[in-house]
Amino acid sequence: MYNKIITIGREFGSGGRTIAKKVAEKLSIPCYDSEIIDEVAIKSGLLKEEIAQKGEHLSASGKMSTIFTLYNLYSNMTKDDIIWHAQKKVIEELAEKGPCIIVGRCADYILRERNDVVKVFVYADKETRSERIVKIYGEKDDSPEKRIKDKDKKRAAYYEHFTEMTWGDPEHYDICLNSGKLGIDKCVEIITSL
Amino acid sequence: MYNKIITIGREFGSGGRTIAKKVAEKLSIPCYDSEIIDEVAIKSGLLKEEIAQKGEHLSASGKMSTIFTLYNLYSNMTKDDIIWHAQKKVIEELAEKGPCIIVGRCADYILRERNDVVKVFVYADKETRSERIVKIYGEKDDSPEKRIKDKDKKRAAYYEHFTEMTWGDPEHYDICLNSGKLGIDKCVEIITSL
Repeated sequence: MYNKIITIGREFGSGGRTIAKKVAEKLSIPCYDSEIIDEVAIKSGLLKEEIAQKGEHLSASGKMSTIFTLYNLYSNMTKDDIIWHAQKKVIEELAEKGPCIIVGRCADYILRERNDVVKVFVYADKETRSERIVKIYGEKDDSPEKRIKDKDKKRAAYYEHFTEMTWGDPEHYDICLNSGKLGIDKCVEIITSL
Repeated sequence: MYNKIITIGREFGSGGRTIAKKVAEKLSIPCYDSEIIDEVAIKSGLLKEEIAQKGEHLSASGKMSTIFTLYNLYSNMTKDDIIWHAQKKVIEELAEKGPCIIVGRCADYILRERNDVVKVFVYADKETRSERIVKIYGEKDDSPEKRIKDKDKKRAAYYEHFTEMTWGDPEHYDICLNSGKLGIDKCVEIITSL
């Protein structure tokens, strides 16, 4: 089997995004993350900022804002559904375009019918992740532990809502890497070798 | 960090034992599996067959057989506890002896305080595993699906009883490999590179 697409799911602070970018560089293929958000924004006509905010977590209320009224004239979909379908379409089109890495956004699930996808999950112990998020994103009012807990919870809820599968369950991935133990560079090396 | 010991946990039929043996061969280090059972048998004086039967699952009743009466004269331990402590001691001693691979038997948990251990979990989809166990162990009265379910359940119960952790939860491992997707040889290559 020839792996054309790499999807990378990751815990917050595990370095999954950094790993993805390094692998993409090594393999000279594009890495889609905020790029996906841009494309979704353009294709669906949704506000870029709105999607960036909503990208990987559900709204607490699920209520429609004015911007979405148009969609609801011809659809019963919620705002979250609209974003999901737009993202899904973009991811499917990116995968069609050629070899690439897609970070997050349930890409592993969306592309599950393809047989040229290798599905990676990156995780790490809480200490390593706490250290990393402070180093990369700086100190915030909330403790790193709380930020990790909140973000993981949102990602898991988003994933489970749309896929009906458990986020981070090895069963849905081809390889799960503990970046805290293996280190970023070793993870890059392993993924590149796939 | 220099990894001296590799522990391999695995789902039944995932090929984890075969992978372990191939890695051991490549690295020219010993691989302990039934060997551990032998050593436990010798050191603890327990019957080899009894341990082989009990190796990775708990008794349904937890009752003592005649052979264990002696132990209970000076101990409140159950038969399962005696086997666990004997295995634990053997695994600790093997790890002290030098680089090696240890398959199953909660070695990842037993050796958790060491910083020279790389902890691997091998899993696969049910179809691949069913095919594999029929090919390797032959047809039996029970369907391959039932055999997988029973064996995994026993391994999980054994692991969770003694470690109070979840068997197969990535958090407890450094790397989790889907042998059904990656193939045996790729798994061997990745583990060897660690």
